[in-house]
Amino acid sequence: MNNYRLTIAYDGSRYSGWQRQGNTENTVQGRIETALTEIFGHKIEINGSGRTDAGTHALAQTASFRADTEMPTEKLMDEVNRLLPGDIAVTAFDPAPERFHARLSVTGKTYAYRLWTAVYPNVFERKFVYHLGKPLNIAEMKRSAALLCREADFIGYSSLKKSKKSTVRTVRSIEVLELGPEVRLVFNGDGFLYNMVRIMAGTLVEVGLGKRSAESVAVPFETLDRADAGETLPAHGLTLVNVEY
Amino acid sequence: MNNYRLTIAYDGSRYSGWQRQGNTENTVQGRIETALTEIFGHKIEINGSGRTDAGTHALAQTASFRADTEMPTEKLMDEVNRLLPGDIAVTAFDPAPERFHARLSVTGKTYAYRLWTAVYPNVFERKFVYHLGKPLNIAEMKRSAALLCREADFIGYSSLKKSKKSTVRTVRSIEVLELGPEVRLVFNGDGFLYNMVRIMAGTLVEVGLGKRSAESVAVPFETLDRADAGETLPAHGLTLVNVEY
Repeated sequence: MNNYRLTIAYDGSRYSGWQRQGNTENTVQGRIETALTEIFGHKIEINGSGRTDAGTHALAQTASFRADTEMPTEKLMDEVNRLLPGDIAVTAFDPAPERFHARLSVTGKTYAYRLWTAVYPNVFERKFVYHLGKPLNIAEMKRSAALLCREADFIGYSSLKKSKKSTVRTVRSIEVLELGPEVRLVFNGDGFLYNMVRIMAGTLVEVGLGKRSAESVAVPFETLDRADAGETLPAHGLTLVNVEY
Repeated sequence: MNNYRLTIAYDGSRYSGWQRQGNTENTVQGRIETALTEIFGHKIEINGSGRTDAGTHALAQTASFRADTEMPTEKLMDEVNRLLPGDIAVTAFDPAPERFHARLSVTGKTYAYRLWTAVYPNVFERKFVYHLGKPLNIAEMKRSAALLCREADFIGYSSLKKSKKSTVRTVRSIEVLELGPEVRLVFNGDGFLYNMVRIMAGTLVEVGLGKRSAESVAVPFETLDRADAGETLPAHGLTLVNVEY
């Protein structure tokens, strides 16, 4: 059996997230599996690097699967893109080492949360940015962002109720980029809990709007209480940018 | 009467172009006039810098109109954006000098034609780029582009059958930019004839694909024959980037 690694871009607007759910076809994973199943002539199941929420996008999600074929990967990539809808694209279709697994082999991920601060909307990227419509105090947000970069129990920055597994994660860096009227928050870490990026982004926005102090973002690490973090921002502002192996 | 200048961004995908046509509401001009008419309480007609084709976009189209009101322009801008659909935005609403007219005062325009050369589609910007799916010879395209920069009769690079008005235009610059898998052609000139940018872009693409020589792009200036230029590329790859005054 050959092992394959897919790199996948998607506009998540009309999907119920990455992960296949029973028989519903309205997931990115489901659409890709349907296309691959048609190409290979038997059922193909793929392993993604992790879930993305309904409405969230990906510039480079990854997935792996095993299959036998003589077809070269260039041909496989053309075929799968021919079968996929216009809002999902396989941007790389590569042979992978035998032991590669898109979820189990992950060493890090990068997400971007995109905020649009102008009063007028961004007509071209309105599906990919959250229209805040207000200016942000970038200096204060950068101070806060530095306080979020740590190895810690991030359960207070998650929508998880309880977890049997460890909720300790390492956030390595958070960039606060000013790109014209867009403020882009770029999060890199070894992994992120459910809703963790959207809650960190919401908390940083509250700092940027002067609704809370820069220092207050450290409180959830002490209390482990979701109520001490900021609001969960909408899914459509979030993009999975990269997965590291 | 106050004179106003609007700067307007639009995703032209679902419109029949800029220019209002009779009673149809499916134009960008029509949508903006409807919103302004509601704000001012009487019929408002605006003058755009020029038409854009059905399906073509604008980053900064301009328009002017006269009206009387005590309302400050910040408030007017908020109101008009509240009334406009999400794919049209007024990005600046400014008082203009008495003699300013968005069409008659134009001194230059910049258009971008965006080509996507990767075999896979651009899922995020698929409405704004033309998916060519093939590599282009950029050096040859740059040689050709330089030959198109001139003051000349551009009737051969237009879909106009005949014209009573002058069809002499000056193309000042054409940049050929490589932005990852995107090749962006940026045209600046004193004005452009009907379909002129889309035909120049189509001709440059034929050069980039090796279908014609770089030198051949000068032929339509001699023959004034549309048949000697390349094909008209689709409207959705074209964006009006800027209007100069």
